Amino acid sequence: MALIFFERVGHEGRRPSPFSWRIRYALEHKGVDFEVRPVRFADVETIRALTGQHLTPVLSDGDHVVHETWDIACYLEQRFPDNPSLFGGAIGRGMARHINVWSDTQLGSPLRHVIYGDFPAVLDAEDRAYFRATRERDLGMTLEAACADPEGKLAAFQQACAPLEHTLSVQPYICGPAPAYADYTVFSIFQWARLGSPKQVVVQGSAIAEWRRRMIALFGNLGDRFPCYPT
Amino acid sequence: MALIFFERVGHEGRRPSPFSWRIRYALEHKGVDFEVRPVRFADVETIRALTGQHLTPVLSDGDHVVHETWDIACYLEQRFPDNPSLFGGAIGRGMARHINVWSDTQLGSPLRHVIYGDFPAVLDAEDRAYFRATRERDLGMTLEAACADPEGKLAAFQQACAPLEHTLSVQPYICGPAPAYADYTVFSIFQWARLGSPKQVVVQGSAIAEWRRRMIALFGNLGDRFPCYPT
Repeated sequence: MALIFFERVGHEGRRPSPFSWRIRYALEHKGVDFEVRPVRFADVETIRALTGQHLTPVLSDGDHVVHETWDIACYLEQRFPDNPSLFGGAIGRGMARHINVWSDTQLGSPLRHVIYGDFPAVLDAEDRAYFRATRERDLGMTLEAACADPEGKLAAFQQACAPLEHTLSVQPYICGPAPAYADYTVFSIFQWARLGSPKQVVVQGSAIAEWRRRMIALFGNLGDRFPCYPT
Repeated sequence: MALIFFERVGHEGRRPSPFSWRIRYALEHKGVDFEVRPVRFADVETIRALTGQHLTPVLSDGDHVVHETWDIACYLEQRFPDNPSLFGGAIGRGMARHINVWSDTQLGSPLRHVIYGDFPAVLDAEDRAYFRATRERDLGMTLEAACADPEGKLAAFQQACAPLEHTLSVQPYICGPAPAYADYTVFSIFQWARLGSPKQVVVQGSAIAEWRRRMIALFGNLGDRFPCYPT
């Protein structure tokens, strides 16, 4: 029986969630079959009935249901030990988790202040008020206030990318000669930006730009499979 | 023939260099025999004659001489493939490099502004003027000016440690259940602080404090083998 992958869906089939991108790439990396169940924020009861909480992605594997992005990645690694590894063993799994924490906090946090003002348009119309209310509560201000001074906010994000630019100038992927889970994690932040906003957050000609191009092209151009930012 | 490890030595046998700490821990992790040749900044001609450049650490293995800390770690991994792994394979080596870049730039850079004013005292008397001149040139200001507003500088460093604190609150080491090279890299930054300044840079009771305690205790209390900051 195929795995079932519940992932956030946005306006007209868009895929706005960085967490879902991690698992999509991880599933392709493992080369396993899966079916997709797209869910909006408005479909929260489907997810709650399945997991007792409201966040996506969720992976269902027969009787076994896993939520929490990191736990899903670890589950895939354990469940398919003979398929290509996401982490390269216990040492790599540890480091991948640290890079996960680093990218969510050090890249993801400042990126919110770049893209959140644009983000509602990428969501289903029914989801926009929920997104705005929950994110404004987290930020303690309106999305527009959070994204004031756009040039300063973009500069702060690009400054936070400096270690990544350095790494990718000395090796092709975060995981060395070929991509693995840490690349998918960090790439998901850039997909979030790319699909959630019309702003260009990556410096043209940079090592990050080249890496992102290669990451988009993986698995039959997976990074471009869904509609881009609505114009 | 034993490996020969050239490492920076400071005042009365102190070990002030973060880069040397990485390789010391890596050598112990590999469990290989080595002899130590302590070198001061003033002994630059020894290093230059051996490598054509002036930085330590340097590893000499028969006719083969390796400099550059990262390259030495990779050399040890390749040279002793059957000993405990520093990286856990190619994927792990890639991630370890990214964590190396991250810790040098995101932790090491702000830490200079916490400890550099104290640092000359840990060096051999003959090395102090050289250290001051080269670091002041890099910083574009005096060591004292770089370390002005000590509370603000310490707060900036501790803020930069937030992702590390998060990681170490969910797993015992950066490399997961047991330490490996990425732990040695990041720990070396804390040894630099600990041996190069009397300031307490780690928050008592934090996950980082507990991890540092365990890291110091490794390999027969290796982190405490040399004299501490001069009083």
